[in-house]
Amino acid sequence: MHRYRSHTCGALSTAEVGEIVRLSGWCHRIRDHGGVLFIDLRDHYGLTQVVVDPDSAAFKDAEKVRSEWVIRIDGKVRLRPEGTENPDLTTGAVEVYAAELEVLGPAAELPLPVFGDVEYPEETRLKYRFLDLRREKLHRNIMTRGAIIDAMRRRMKDQGFFEFQTPILTASSPEGARDFLVPSRLHPGTFYALPQAPQQYKQLIMMSGFDRYFQIAPCFRDEDPRADRLPGEFYQLDLEMSFVEQEDVFAAMEPVITGVFEEFSGGKPVTQKWPRIPYAEALRKYGTDKPDLRNPLVMQGVSEHFRGSGFKVFARMLEVEKNEVWAIPAPGGGSRAFCDRMNSWAQGEGQPGLGYIMWREGGEGAGPLANNIGPERTEAIRAQLDLKAGDAAFFVAGDPEKFVKFAGLARTRVGEELNLIDKDRFELAWIVDFPFYEWSEDEKKVDFSHNPFSMPQGGLEALKTQDPLTIKAFQYDIACNGYEIASGGIRNHRPEAMVKAFELAGYDEATVVERFGGMYRAFQYGAPPHGGMAAGVDRIVMLLCGTTNLREISIFPMNQQALDLLMGAPNEASPKQLRELHIRPVSPQK
Amino acid sequence: MHRYRSHTCGALSTAEVGEIVRLSGWCHRIRDHGGVLFIDLRDHYGLTQVVVDPDSAAFKDAEKVRSEWVIRIDGKVRLRPEGTENPDLTTGAVEVYAAELEVLGPAAELPLPVFGDVEYPEETRLKYRFLDLRREKLHRNIMTRGAIIDAMRRRMKDQGFFEFQTPILTASSPEGARDFLVPSRLHPGTFYALPQAPQQYKQLIMMSGFDRYFQIAPCFRDEDPRADRLPGEFYQLDLEMSFVEQEDVFAAMEPVITGVFEEFSGGKPVTQKWPRIPYAEALRKYGTDKPDLRNPLVMQGVSEHFRGSGFKVFARMLEVEKNEVWAIPAPGGGSRAFCDRMNSWAQGEGQPGLGYIMWREGGEGAGPLANNIGPERTEAIRAQLDLKAGDAAFFVAGDPEKFVKFAGLARTRVGEELNLIDKDRFELAWIVDFPFYEWSEDEKKVDFSHNPFSMPQGGLEALKTQDPLTIKAFQYDIACNGYEIASGGIRNHRPEAMVKAFELAGYDEATVVERFGGMYRAFQYGAPPHGGMAAGVDRIVMLLCGTTNLREISIFPMNQQALDLLMGAPNEASPKQLRELHIRPVSPQK
Repeated sequence: MHRYRSHTCGALSTAEVGEIVRLSGWCHRIRDHGGVLFIDLRDHYGLTQVVVDPDSAAFKDAEKVRSEWVIRIDGKVRLRPEGTENPDLTTGAVEVYAAELEVLGPAAELPLPVFGDVEYPEETRLKYRFLDLRREKLHRNIMTRGAIIDAMRRRMKDQGFFEFQTPILTASSPEGARDFLVPSRLHPGTFYALPQAPQQYKQLIMMSGFDRYFQIAPCFRDEDPRADRLPGEFYQLDLEMSFVEQEDVFAAMEPVITGVFEEFSGGKPVTQKWPRIPYAEALRKYGTDKPDLRNPLVMQGVSEHFRGSGFKVFARMLEVEKNEVWAIPAPGGGSRAFCDRMNSWAQGEGQPGLGYIMWREGGEGAGPLANNIGPERTEAIRAQLDLKAGDAAFFVAGDPEKFVKFAGLARTRVGEELNLIDKDRFELAWIVDFPFYEWSEDEKKVDFSHNPFSMPQGGLEALKTQDPLTIKAFQYDIACNGYEIASGGIRNHRPEAMVKAFELAGYDEATVVERFGGMYRAFQYGAPPHGGMAAGVDRIVMLLCGTTNLREISIFPMNQQALDLLMGAPNEASPKQLRELHIRPVSPQK
Repeated sequence: MHRYRSHTCGALSTAEVGEIVRLSGWCHRIRDHGGVLFIDLRDHYGLTQVVVDPDSAAFKDAEKVRSEWVIRIDGKVRLRPEGTENPDLTTGAVEVYAAELEVLGPAAELPLPVFGDVEYPEETRLKYRFLDLRREKLHRNIMTRGAIIDAMRRRMKDQGFFEFQTPILTASSPEGARDFLVPSRLHPGTFYALPQAPQQYKQLIMMSGFDRYFQIAPCFRDEDPRADRLPGEFYQLDLEMSFVEQEDVFAAMEPVITGVFEEFSGGKPVTQKWPRIPYAEALRKYGTDKPDLRNPLVMQGVSEHFRGSGFKVFARMLEVEKNEVWAIPAPGGGSRAFCDRMNSWAQGEGQPGLGYIMWREGGEGAGPLANNIGPERTEAIRAQLDLKAGDAAFFVAGDPEKFVKFAGLARTRVGEELNLIDKDRFELAWIVDFPFYEWSEDEKKVDFSHNPFSMPQGGLEALKTQDPLTIKAFQYDIACNGYEIASGGIRNHRPEAMVKAFELAGYDEATVVERFGGMYRAFQYGAPPHGGMAAGVDRIVMLLCGTTNLREISIFPMNQQALDLLMGAPNEASPKQLRELHIRPVSPQK
């Protein structure tokens, strides 16, 4: 017989009744029923009930074991007594009567129980991650993560993509975030950087004549902690294709992503034919470029109804050309209590308040705004928004660039408060036509709004003739349930257009050559048209596991302070290490 | 029609004759046959011959294009004229008569031609890697690499393994090599380390209750340049299993590795049932723990034949107990010229020389050694080595620990010189029973000879009672054709044995806790018996691609000085970056 097991703890059924078997695993739960010990023995594959009574030679040893001890038992499989079967377990019809028990790995008093769902502080959970990972939900999440990544790989290959590994020790990249640096021992005073994304490498792979690249790629950004980001490293499903336009990327990736979602959605519906929403439209309708389309609310411009009206606050605002009034419809929200609650919420968000109109039985508008603008305008607004008695609408006014984010939050809030959001579905959409440039208020100059390597719509011609801030890019995102889960673009593969694009953002050709030398060089020697995208693996797994905490779907995450509590990283380097790396730590300036 | 292509350059056959098609690709080779232009258009998938003559509207544009320009052509597929078919190409029966040609990406004068097999300096090849990667052999190697990794994944999953991603930003690890460090911005004066291998993490995964882990894992070692190692980063097929003994690891992995080799060996035979060679035996027979078993030569101890003999040099040496004489048989090597050549080679290796005996027709021994020891001993040696007329044997003498490496080189040399090595096969073997400890001459103490986390044979009992230098470990390698391609062990999962093992190597418990805190902690809370191994992906790919240069099978490698000539890494950091990371470069001391 095998030294440790003849079966896993998830294998036994009535077919094995009468057999002598050997199992190894962790003591999940131990119950003493009047001198008879019941041990739920657990391994990766399942749970098996082990019974030991005082007649068994194993009894003395069994009395010693505690939760999470690793043991081996030999025993005979038998049917559970009638009425004690557990239909929730694959092994629930049987139990093993133990004749022998060996302790393989004892356990000290546990800082964190494995059995049960008791909440524990995150610090304890991360320090004893190996215990937390034994718990059912986290264990399952990590397995799901692996299965999702397998499915991504399989589906990418089915679409004709090949996987490549790009370097992790590389040069500082231009993604805009902060690099992690790695001091070079052999070249004093110089540093490698960890890739923020394999952006340049994947483009170089296209210029190397490969056709369809993908990679489950580790990416590294030294960002300040944020709840929706894993500190340090994260994974992207990164891809690139040659001889393609935007439509080709969509056609290749929509089935991959839809397929992965359907495979792991647990039966929840997934968008089949994704809408394509221009960036500007997404802002106008949803107040964000990553709309949650499970929320049916669509905002509308209603400036005309307030222009010159008796509601002077809005009327005066509208005298400034760029200002507008947007309405957030709130079907079923036509109660004073709800409207006041929304108003208070808005004040909590730092807004002066949130104007509203309610529609009473008979279609009559109510509330201060309705009173100020009169019944005719109130009715026109109702008609435009297609609302009815018992509904309400909220209004935000001013410069859309400034209020859009708040408007988006208000739309979400209304949807949530009124239970309009069907949580049990995945709504996917392409967001397209992102602006190529934006105005940087900090630097008082035009800068790239997303990826500097994207192709501007209209190409070199547009760069030469258009107001930069009106140029759109062949740049797109995938939004799912309020998250950006992917981002990509068709690349600018013409060196003269690349140089011009950077010039408009204030970088001269010498800077381009210095910062992106490899790619600039490659563009000179026969670059194919190409494009691609990168999807956030962690975020997709998070959505499919039904959690909002990225540390629930990553096996050994750092905490929010970028500390690895399990391994004790980061830690001090030895003087020898520092000497070899030609660096000296400097105390931060107080 | 698609903007860039209706077919790839590898797709057309006689089935498409008469069709109007669109192709995009690189101008691989352009020939002018009396005013008719033949363009071999190349993409990732193949080559198609494009024809343009002065009657075509595309002719003017076609005259402009040069090697490696990226173009799109529209044209009609037609049969090649009889006698001009190229059976080596899948598209070799047809050509496309171009009616239209668009330049998608022009190319400047090439620093490195893509067409043809001309050798170029490595510096040029690495700086213009995107051109080098377009060349047939390198392009194919990189695709083979990807296919091998896919096969590894598939076969590991078939064996019930699951893939996990372990952190890349972690703490300094104990693999013995030098870590790459990453300064922490948020925690001044501290550093992350890049993993030399996910050794601790994979063991923690087992302690987290997962059962069969694998990963195609990037590993990082800041080693001095060596020809048989990629500087910086390399990939391992890393794996670990719970509730196993050494035999289980062998049973799981032998079919995976054999299968991968068979899949990519191009028909070359691969060992089916791997021999298991104890470490000590490998040294005695082959002079190395990574023997090339394609070489049929097996060394033998022949001390007794020289003890007290007339060959005083050896006889005197043998008066010292630890000294021995080993023989390297050389079937077919019985000529003065060959023996002298071997002798000169040995002197070139820094040896005083290489003693030998040749056997003439009739079985008579010849050469100075034979003369000195006389015919009886000479014949006894011949009989022991099973040699015949026309053969020779070479002898190394002294302390085996000191000469073993040279003896191994001599065995290889003899095998190569006499053409005894069948290059067209892959010979795989397990090397087992590695010593757990070795004597460190530098530190004058006992130290771990390989992995400190391996289980000593005999367990805690052996650690307590045996001379440490006689303890073997459950530690094993895979050798293939003279390379170590994998290494692994059954782990020491008992904390008291771990502490004792480190104590014998001079590390107290506090040091263990400090350096391996996470794992030490995990051992306290129910650790299962476990073991695994890691195989070198790059080395396996190298063997299967039939090259000995690792830069031929890695897509964007650094050069031997750990410089990335394509991206320009490492490079200087900005003052802002250094300030944020709380470090200052220090000039190396002269």
